[in-house]
Amino acid sequence: MASADGSKLWGGRFVGDTDPIMEKFNASIAYDKRMWDADIRGSKAYAKALEKAKLVTAEEKDYILHGMDQIHDEWAKGVFEVKPGDEDIHTANERRLKELIGEPAGKLHTGRSRNDQVVTDMRLWLRDAISILKGNALQLITTMVERAAVEIDVLFPGYTHMQRAQPIRWSHWILSHAVALSRDVEQLQEINRRVNVLPLGSGAIAGTPFNIDREMLRQELAFDDISINSMDATGQRDFIAEFLFWASLCLTHLSKMAEDLMLYSTKEFSFLTLSDAYSTGSSLMPQKKNADSLELIRSKAGRVFGRCAGFLMTLKGLPSTYNKDLQEDKEAMFDCFDTVHAVLQVTTGVVSTLKINPSVMEAALSPDMLATDLAYYLVRKGVITHFCPPPHSLSFPLDPPLAPLSSPLFSSDVSAVWDYSSSVEQYSAPGGTAKSSVAAQVEHMRTWLKKQVQ
Amino acid sequence: MASADGSKLWGGRFVGDTDPIMEKFNASIAYDKRMWDADIRGSKAYAKALEKAKLVTAEEKDYILHGMDQIHDEWAKGVFEVKPGDEDIHTANERRLKELIGEPAGKLHTGRSRNDQVVTDMRLWLRDAISILKGNALQLITTMVERAAVEIDVLFPGYTHMQRAQPIRWSHWILSHAVALSRDVEQLQEINRRVNVLPLGSGAIAGTPFNIDREMLRQELAFDDISINSMDATGQRDFIAEFLFWASLCLTHLSKMAEDLMLYSTKEFSFLTLSDAYSTGSSLMPQKKNADSLELIRSKAGRVFGRCAGFLMTLKGLPSTYNKDLQEDKEAMFDCFDTVHAVLQVTTGVVSTLKINPSVMEAALSPDMLATDLAYYLVRKGVITHFCPPPHSLSFPLDPPLAPLSSPLFSSDVSAVWDYSSSVEQYSAPGGTAKSSVAAQVEHMRTWLKKQVQ
Amino acid sequence: MASADGSKLWGGRFVGDTDPIMEKFNASIAYDKRMWDADIRGSKAYAKALEKAKLVTAEEKDYILHGMDQIHDEWAKGVFEVKPGDEDIHTANERRLKELIGEPAGKLHTGRSRNDQVVTDMRLWLRDAISILKGNALQLITTMVERAAVEIDVLFPGYTHMQRAQPIRWSHWILSHAVALSRDVEQLQEINRRVNVLPLGSGAIAGTPFNIDREMLRQELAFDDISINSMDATGQRDFIAEFLFWASLCLTHLSKMAEDLMLYSTKEFSFLTLSDAYSTGSSLMPQKKNADSLELIRSKAGRVFGRCAGFLMTLKGLPSTYNKDLQEDKEAMFDCFDTVHAVLQVTTGVVSTLKINPSVMEAALSPDMLATDLAYYLVRKGVITHFCPPPHSLSFPLDPPLAPLSSPLFSSDVSAVWDYSSSVEQYSAPGGTAKSSVAAQVEHMRTWLKKQVQ
Amino acid sequence: MASADGSKLWGGRFVGDTDPIMEKFNASIAYDKRMWDADIRGSKAYAKALEKAKLVTAEEKDYILHGMDQIHDEWAKGVFEVKPGDEDIHTANERRLKELIGEPAGKLHTGRSRNDQVVTDMRLWLRDAISILKGNALQLITTMVERAAVEIDVLFPGYTHMQRAQPIRWSHWILSHAVALSRDVEQLQEINRRVNVLPLGSGAIAGTPFNIDREMLRQELAFDDISINSMDATGQRDFIAEFLFWASLCLTHLSKMAEDLMLYSTKEFSFLTLSDAYSTGSSLMPQKKNADSLELIRSKAGRVFGRCAGFLMTLKGLPSTYNKDLQEDKEAMFDCFDTVHAVLQVTTGVVSTLKINPSVMEAALSPDMLATDLAYYLVRKGVITHFCPPPHSLSFPLDPPLAPLSSPLFSSDVSAVWDYSSSVEQYSAPGGTAKSSVAAQVEHMRTWLKKQVQ
Repeated sequence: MASADGSKLWGGRFVGDTDPIMEKFNASIAYDKRMWDADIRGSKAYAKALEKAKLVTAEEKDYILHGMDQIHDEWAKGVFEVKPGDEDIHTANERRLKELIGEPAGKLHTGRSRNDQVVTDMRLWLRDAISILKGNALQLITTMVERAAVEIDVLFPGYTHMQRAQPIRWSHWILSHAVALSRDVEQLQEINRRVNVLPLGSGAIAGTPFNIDREMLRQELAFDDISINSMDATGQRDFIAEFLFWASLCLTHLSKMAEDLMLYSTKEFSFLTLSDAYSTGSSLMPQKKNADSLELIRSKAGRVFGRCAGFLMTLKGLPSTYNKDLQEDKEAMFDCFDTVHAVLQVTTGVVSTLKINPSVMEAALSPDMLATDLAYYLVRKGVITHFCPPPHSLSFPLDPPLAPLSSPLFSSDVSAVWDYSSSVEQYSAPGGTAKSSVAAQVEHMRTWLKKQVQ
Repeated sequence: MASADGSKLWGGRFVGDTDPIMEKFNASIAYDKRMWDADIRGSKAYAKALEKAKLVTAEEKDYILHGMDQIHDEWAKGVFEVKPGDEDIHTANERRLKELIGEPAGKLHTGRSRNDQVVTDMRLWLRDAISILKGNALQLITTMVERAAVEIDVLFPGYTHMQRAQPIRWSHWILSHAVALSRDVEQLQEINRRVNVLPLGSGAIAGTPFNIDREMLRQELAFDDISINSMDATGQRDFIAEFLFWASLCLTHLSKMAEDLMLYSTKEFSFLTLSDAYSTGSSLMPQKKNADSLELIRSKAGRVFGRCAGFLMTLKGLPSTYNKDLQEDKEAMFDCFDTVHAVLQVTTGVVSTLKINPSVMEAALSPDMLATDLAYYLVRKGVITHFCPPPHSLSFPLDPPLAPLSSPLFSSDVSAVWDYSSSVEQYSAPGGTAKSSVAAQVEHMRTWLKKQVQ
Repeated sequence: MASADGSKLWGGRFVGDTDPIMEKFNASIAYDKRMWDADIRGSKAYAKALEKAKLVTAEEKDYILHGMDQIHDEWAKGVFEVKPGDEDIHTANERRLKELIGEPAGKLHTGRSRNDQVVTDMRLWLRDAISILKGNALQLITTMVERAAVEIDVLFPGYTHMQRAQPIRWSHWILSHAVALSRDVEQLQEINRRVNVLPLGSGAIAGTPFNIDREMLRQELAFDDISINSMDATGQRDFIAEFLFWASLCLTHLSKMAEDLMLYSTKEFSFLTLSDAYSTGSSLMPQKKNADSLELIRSKAGRVFGRCAGFLMTLKGLPSTYNKDLQEDKEAMFDCFDTVHAVLQVTTGVVSTLKINPSVMEAALSPDMLATDLAYYLVRKGVITHFCPPPHSLSFPLDPPLAPLSSPLFSSDVSAVWDYSSSVEQYSAPGGTAKSSVAAQVEHMRTWLKKQVQ
Repeated sequence: MASADGSKLWGGRFVGDTDPIMEKFNASIAYDKRMWDADIRGSKAYAKALEKAKLVTAEEKDYILHGMDQIHDEWAKGVFEVKPGDEDIHTANERRLKELIGEPAGKLHTGRSRNDQVVTDMRLWLRDAISILKGNALQLITTMVERAAVEIDVLFPGYTHMQRAQPIRWSHWILSHAVALSRDVEQLQEINRRVNVLPLGSGAIAGTPFNIDREMLRQELAFDDISINSMDATGQRDFIAEFLFWASLCLTHLSKMAEDLMLYSTKEFSFLTLSDAYSTGSSLMPQKKNADSLELIRSKAGRVFGRCAGFLMTLKGLPSTYNKDLQEDKEAMFDCFDTVHAVLQVTTGVVSTLKINPSVMEAALSPDMLATDLAYYLVRKGVITHFCPPPHSLSFPLDPPLAPLSSPLFSSDVSAVWDYSSSVEQYSAPGGTAKSSVAAQVEHMRTWLKKQVQ
């Protein structure tokens, strides 16, 4: 054998007609079997198109549909048996179909290529996955918005640069994160429009040479559009790349929220306590509760972005059309779905169950945080003509800081400024931290949420 | 001096009240001065809002507007002088305004923070940048579509796995890349909707305590919406992250096309020749023309994605609201804009001017590339009931491959298959490589292009 | 229940005392069980240190060692049963030990923390993994070097910018990749020195309060050094980050080689043919062999770098010491090991078994590739004083290029230049493509290889 | 003109014989001029090798050396004039040499290619850069070690999971970061060995056809080794990739330290105060000092890793030898050097000048942090046979936590445990937080530092 000789000559590994490591390296069944349902749906629709094109008879079509339904049952019941040689889910389902219905099984491949089949399956699978993630995100946002509605009267310090800056409502903080997540939902829907495009009927590269009715396939599989160019349809994975990046940005939002919550749950801040379900307690050190859930949430942004970076790097520099390199698409897609799916639910749990400590939160407000407001009080009174802080700060030259209160510059109405509750009420423009403004945000989000589930 | 003592104690660097390295490290004027125009526009609108809120008089507003116009002229003429202490564009413009109009300059800061000002400027700048890139992309797509229309009759091998697969039209290849770019344009417009949101009036974190009419600001600056939550508005840079990823995916498309073109312009393929403007010739070796332009295009996907990866990593794990870390946003944004701006134009030049070699392209077609079509011929004739290739290939058991032609299985009409030109005509379903189908793609793209410029 | 109430209030997920999604999210046993052997080795060594510190008796130590040996057998035979509650490999082994030996099992934890235990296990595991990868890499390099030795007389075009540049030896090309891999091996050994450091005895953060003899532990577990600072020892994962980057750079080398080989195995180049074991053939299109193996090799550089990028992003911005985020370390480590392990072996198989086509390779040489040599001939003769090519090219002003041969400038000895075989012999300086120089490279590499296995 | 016609046909950009955007895109002089000194050193050495090979006369060599010295002076004085057409530093220096010395300038290129010249320059430049960074890192480490020596008696809480865990010495914390940086220095030196290899004499791809004495070049330019294979030498940029990753890991260390310091300098922790030189104070809110320096340090890990990711992505999938894509190497290298150079110095300044607040630090210690120690006390006494905490915690079943003190289980010597100062003294094994152990770490680091500067 040439290959055996070759390995002898140069001291390489002994390799016969096949290399078991290569076969394992090449096979994707271990993970792409998750697409069993999408594969079956795609094949059933294709069988109907073959019948319409008179490439199979009505009877053959029925055999195929029936066989596919049986395979569906086997997978659903967990009894489908993957056999050696089933290198991917498509081969496995086809092999089984042949076992079940014999001859007509072979016709299912007429004019269809692995290239358009694989990407059709992925789009069907991802469309469902996106729908699930959207549901998870909406549940989390709902939780946040309703919690914000209930706890609207709690004040605590707003931080910039991790330093106390101005008094704000706790609900204002909650909503700042909910708003970011609502952008994620909107972006996910935009991506979904690009996912929900039918590639089937693109063949390996050049299209299909039969009268396959792609419009019928589109309707059958409930796609919004059909792909425009067969080379692009079979060779592009932009929708995967977009999804991976979406996952990265979404988890970056949750990492940001987790970082805040971790800070707030330190002994030093003590603003809140996580539920036991989301932390590791210690009977020895009752004060020590590790916020494991928050640390995991924070970490996953990295994991998911790694998948995105890895896949982009795999894509980069590839020539066009299908190249085997694209096989990296599926593990990345599954892992990002699983991760975001878990993180969104865990975050919902964390946010639902954490307990805030309003008295500690309010005790963390200090008079120096009202300095800006005092300055603005004087501006309004016309006592000082303007207030010009140095860059990146909010300052004016008063020393000691609390001196103004006893100054003749101040009328008795300064007390409205000199009180955290009334002070925050000044921030009543849209988006501000006044009660009316926060309540308006809650209403805005409730309306938005209603629209999402229609 | 405490700090000097400190450095003595521990052998650190000598540092006085200020550290010049820190100051340089901290300053952003070297690059953010590119936003001078956006900063002026934002300030002018804000001056009008201040007047409406009775925080400046009409006269003061006019001083400010006039001063800002003068500053605009100085920047436009290249005579604006950046001075020591101008750490960023905002400080520079304010400092200059004060020099020009004195006292009222200070009032421009009433209720405005660096936090909402910076992000307003970035959004204004990026909105314009996106508009330019959209124009560049449309010009490239137009070039491709029109070239595809003209050269529709040229056939050459379509490759999968870098191996010849099936005969396709050269225009089909062009359009496969044009279609990908059209998705980039659509995605860019979606991003633009998230860019085009007014954050001004969000203050440092809590909103504005004055009667600043945010709706008026929105109209004045032609934003589509106003931001919902002040903490989110000042602390999020999602629109930058999205833009950086958009740039990465767009350049990955161009990298893919460049890789194809590089291959096609090797001596071994000889399908096409780049214009001298886009290659380095050699008088000694006339055959050697390095496709420098294509290599640069290919490389830039890496550069731009690096910016995206770097910025995401900077964002990851940050707590909410403004943190100085966000200062990384601007260089990434500028660099990605500049790179994509150049790459799109160079690619347009390359595509406009390359010369194809149709005879070499057609000579690269070989009879084995028709094997699939022959098999399908037999399926249509009913001679064989189906055609079931092994996974990932297009094959059926004929040996030697050309035997069928002399077989009684074939009628005289096999000649329509046994001819590259008529063979490709079979791929007439939407998205296929038949002439009608490619022409339909051209029309589809022309219609799409028209819609974009409305 | 407070948490249930919470979920009612805000519409969050219902969560009781525990959240099953959180538990699953938190558990690592699914993947960290791969470290079962390392965990057992670490525990056995620790039991000995406990005895030396008089924290367990000799008898207790023997119970522990014996129990651990039994557990080892169970894992080795594949009969170890993971039970609910075994959240990680450490818990699983401990739980089992307690079942086997009762009371003394509990003492094994005296002064040991999960924090130092986990990282000890990882270092033990990775040390072995590195040793395996080194072996794989050496086998590949050996294959390449010996193939280079045998095929030293084959000439073909050397390419720059994917364009034919100068005639070179095929072996020179092979060695260019072997040399890169030898740097990988050297770097891997450097990393191993940083892996092979004992953290055990660092406790959770502050060190161990008992007379644990860390030097004895070091010897027992064959580490080179002990860690210097307990906070660093338990909280750093630099050795993982370094390993992930090493994997990325190593696979980038193999991606580069795969890209060359893919080009050379196109129909257009036809320099070589992969063995069937590493390609997908097609009975219909005998000419089409997809180089699946090469595409997979090329793709994996992306995957592995994604792991590196993801982990670095997870690390970035973390505070010091152990944070749960670090749990991302293990899957990244395992996946990169598995991937590089497979890629190195598959590449060895590919390189061992591919067949080159020397006549096609030499036929690809063309006279214009000798132009530089001709110019240098004239320089040597003193006919022209110097040869100054324009930047980035190798050119001199001769037109038409082959004119010189009939020119009186040339003596009969020009024939030595005007011949590919003798032309390459001019490149005899170290590192060049002359036979002597390539043979010297082979010898250099053989010597280097011998040193590696000592 | 063909190209003009082309642009007319397809609506592309008008492009003549050259495209100004392409020229700008292609040129590197704007940044690679930083290597002017390296380029001159390389050329001077090469001139000597040319003389030895009798390719230039002694007189010509002197002209070249003298000319190069003049060019050196012009650059050093800032008067070197870059002219249109100087596309890179090599062209600029050559063009100038020709202006200065005429004819012999052209001979400098005999047998040298841009490919080996560029990479020689980069290695010379980076070698110096590495030496500077090593100096910066050693100064920072020295500062940290000496500060640790002085403040060894300060206790404060050690945190895991951002929660107070055990009392530790402040110096123990400092050293945990210093130790990480010492690994960076060691790794940098290993990289330097791979940087410090001479590629000159490798030509464009095949080596040099002249008697260029590469060993003499090596000595002349003080390289440690010469490259083994000319294709590898001119086409690999591993040393850049390694350097970029090194920068990423080093800044990840500093990001980690910055995160700790940011936490410690919040109002809530109040463990330390940054010097005014490294923070932005506010006269209005005296308590608010933004730790701008720490935020910038934290952010730069992202920036630098982005460069690494981008460059790796550019490398991935490239074929071997020189491709223009490699031009991305230089900006990445310069930017990472500049960033690390600044960050190390700023960090040194921050660490030198920050003031700790020992009384607040010690006040943050709480009795529950001694629970583990109490348990171990009982283990030592034999009162309890062992201490088996649940996974990931340090706990034992005592409730309320302080009950044991009045229990008959405790002798009077429990007071040594029940005291933070004596409690930490138990952690005296190597690497622990006992005074002797921390002092040993200081000595270890001092010894290590001395070795580095020899």
